[in-house]
Amino acid sequence: MDSLVREDLEYIWHPCMQMHDFEKNVPLVPIKSASGVYLYGYNGEKYIDCISSWWVNIFGHCNPYINQKLKEQVDKLEHVIFATFTHEPIITLSKRLIKLTNYSFDKCFYADNGSSVIEVALKMAFAAKRFEDKNVNSFISLQNAYHGETIGALSIGDIGIYNESYKPLLCKSIKIKAPRGDFYLESLEELENTLKENKDKIAAFVLEPLIQCAGGMNMYNAEFVKEATNLCRKYGIYVIFDEIAVGFGRTGSMFAFEQCGVTPDFLCLSKGISGGYLPLSVVLLKNEVYNIFYAPFYENKAFLHSHSYTGNALACACANATLDIFEKDNVIVANKILSDFIWEKAQELLEFNFIQNLRRCGMVLAFDIVGFVNERKGLEVFNKGLKKGLLLRPLGNTIYFMPPYVITKDEVLFVFDNLKCIFETFQ
Amino acid sequence: MDSLVREDLEYIWHPCMQMHDFEKNVPLVPIKSASGVYLYGYNGEKYIDCISSWWVNIFGHCNPYINQKLKEQVDKLEHVIFATFTHEPIITLSKRLIKLTNYSFDKCFYADNGSSVIEVALKMAFAAKRFEDKNVNSFISLQNAYHGETIGALSIGDIGIYNESYKPLLCKSIKIKAPRGDFYLESLEELENTLKENKDKIAAFVLEPLIQCAGGMNMYNAEFVKEATNLCRKYGIYVIFDEIAVGFGRTGSMFAFEQCGVTPDFLCLSKGISGGYLPLSVVLLKNEVYNIFYAPFYENKAFLHSHSYTGNALACACANATLDIFEKDNVIVANKILSDFIWEKAQELLEFNFIQNLRRCGMVLAFDIVGFVNERKGLEVFNKGLKKGLLLRPLGNTIYFMPPYVITKDEVLFVFDNLKCIFETFQ
Repeated sequence: MDSLVREDLEYIWHPCMQMHDFEKNVPLVPIKSASGVYLYGYNGEKYIDCISSWWVNIFGHCNPYINQKLKEQVDKLEHVIFATFTHEPIITLSKRLIKLTNYSFDKCFYADNGSSVIEVALKMAFAAKRFEDKNVNSFISLQNAYHGETIGALSIGDIGIYNESYKPLLCKSIKIKAPRGDFYLESLEELENTLKENKDKIAAFVLEPLIQCAGGMNMYNAEFVKEATNLCRKYGIYVIFDEIAVGFGRTGSMFAFEQCGVTPDFLCLSKGISGGYLPLSVVLLKNEVYNIFYAPFYENKAFLHSHSYTGNALACACANATLDIFEKDNVIVANKILSDFIWEKAQELLEFNFIQNLRRCGMVLAFDIVGFVNERKGLEVFNKGLKKGLLLRPLGNTIYFMPPYVITKDEVLFVFDNLKCIFETFQ
Repeated sequence: MDSLVREDLEYIWHPCMQMHDFEKNVPLVPIKSASGVYLYGYNGEKYIDCISSWWVNIFGHCNPYINQKLKEQVDKLEHVIFATFTHEPIITLSKRLIKLTNYSFDKCFYADNGSSVIEVALKMAFAAKRFEDKNVNSFISLQNAYHGETIGALSIGDIGIYNESYKPLLCKSIKIKAPRGDFYLESLEELENTLKENKDKIAAFVLEPLIQCAGGMNMYNAEFVKEATNLCRKYGIYVIFDEIAVGFGRTGSMFAFEQCGVTPDFLCLSKGISGGYLPLSVVLLKNEVYNIFYAPFYENKAFLHSHSYTGNALACACANATLDIFEKDNVIVANKILSDFIWEKAQELLEFNFIQNLRRCGMVLAFDIVGFVNERKGLEVFNKGLKKGLLLRPLGNTIYFMPPYVITKDEVLFVFDNLKCIFETFQ
């Protein structure tokens, strides 16, 4: 194991890490295998994946059913160019996705990762407005938002540590105050003022419905989503929902928009779509948008955005297997019971007065550690968690629990009992 | 099969396509299975994949060895978060990649697709210059370049159909005249003048070494790459080689830079890396760059770029299997013989006087169809090719042959004999 760590640090630069932290602040952990909610190390260690490996895994690692479907697919067709060619797994998947939204959308456009599909939605919204002779040049998004890290996605994001260094490269996005919990009236007012002043310049308003995940798990009222969407309709601006993190049951419904009483023009999905197996993303949209681009070749209206592996058959097979499990295990209903159980158990953490703002939304639970000035308490929870067999990866001093849906009640108890042990050391 | 086509067109918007073309200009082709160089349809049709499914497949579809390695991996570990955690497949892969470059690079930073890894390199180069207190705000790239379609990648690209609609969103990139064949002196002069005038504002120069692939398979002299790189060194500008399409043996050497007598600061790889199975990309770079970001946490110098599936274990397993095949089959040497055979056979096409500019570089062969004004001759080749069992996807009226390396001599003969039949109908 030591040689793995040494070689990793010699040859690899990890994402979203200050590599210097590996000198003494955090260990680098080689994972040998995984099964269900558990990740296994090389010396008998095991960790409960409390964050679903960056919010992607929903039915456990190396899920036997998804494994089998992946193996079956690779014996038939691993990949084929997705321009002019197609295959059954993606047709099946597309049909199911549209049906799952109760036909609120008409078409699926695919990409490989969350950032890329956000770029697709931004470009589609932008080009559609341009084809309609609107001289748009920017977007509206929320303060505290995270939408990915390619330049377009970064432009509509607002988490300083991610985009500060790249300001001269970013395209224009007006950031309005983010709603927090039930406080959203000010945000709505700011949105309406911004729309009034700039409506001819704005292509779309982009938001993460119900939870700004990377932005400290900021959960907020569905009414904001509804009213903001209606405002955008009133001013003729497209609405893009980034459900990359919150889609596929995470907020308690299959998609977060179901709880908001509105549908966006573009619904971006990724992460859980393949069950945590493979990069795959898709934007769902309506024929009103599709038709703007649909024209004889010589009119040059084709939407030219492609990635080599767009529509990858292996990823689609995993996605179909994931949707099979949703259906046969009635997962959305089962999660309500599980979410209540987690919520109840989590109340015990309130005995620690430095734990504040305990909140939940479906299968996401979060709280903040407050009162420790200039201390990386989140990092301490990460390190102590590892020693107790928990993979937690706090966002600063916000701790969140966002496990695979297959976690058992016993495993939940184990997590919270160990969290309590950790917090006892903080007193 | 008809119902597949109908359902596809009902629910799916394909990449890089004017969907209107499916009404009468091109068929949509459902693929049921694949093996080696062949794609199989639903009614007994088979097609030789002459373009390696957008230049990704190098050892054939559903390659038994890669299939086996993928299956073995999914029984151990399908995916784990790649921040703070790691796994053997990616450590092995990183070590092998660095070794394959003869230690010209030190570190690997991963992403999922070509566009994303270009964005990584652009952001790294940009932030590194900023950390060194240079007030950079732009890049230099080549006219006729293609580097991907997310906003950052699009900004350094220069193929009008891709980025015209998005101009107000793009970041600044100065485009200099592209070299063509042996004509590169003017380009070098323009590069030097641009560097002289703007050196304090430029973070990096980006180019596709040896072949601008999407730009009509424009092959050009390695001397340009060498001298341009040396000029950038002289003026203190980073150099990024986009080897997404040309890496992994495509130009005749494992990497194109080997033929140029220089190494860039950033080497971007994707496509062939996973053998055509799964989205995976990586940028190789030197410790001089890595060290600029390596600092105590509180200095805020971490390079924060991540994708959920960065470092995906399944994709890495396919990549390792691909490198195994390169080694055991001595592929680079074998391809030289194959490339000569293809070149010799292709000479027969010169009997058609509308075929011009026949050219090759390693395992890429291309030629242009000239003299037909305002006719989509490429499209005609595509359609007639399909009827003869060939998957060709011309770039406008440029036809290219870029097959998996496992194609046999008989299959090559089949391709060119059928191409000749197609061209006979043009006379």
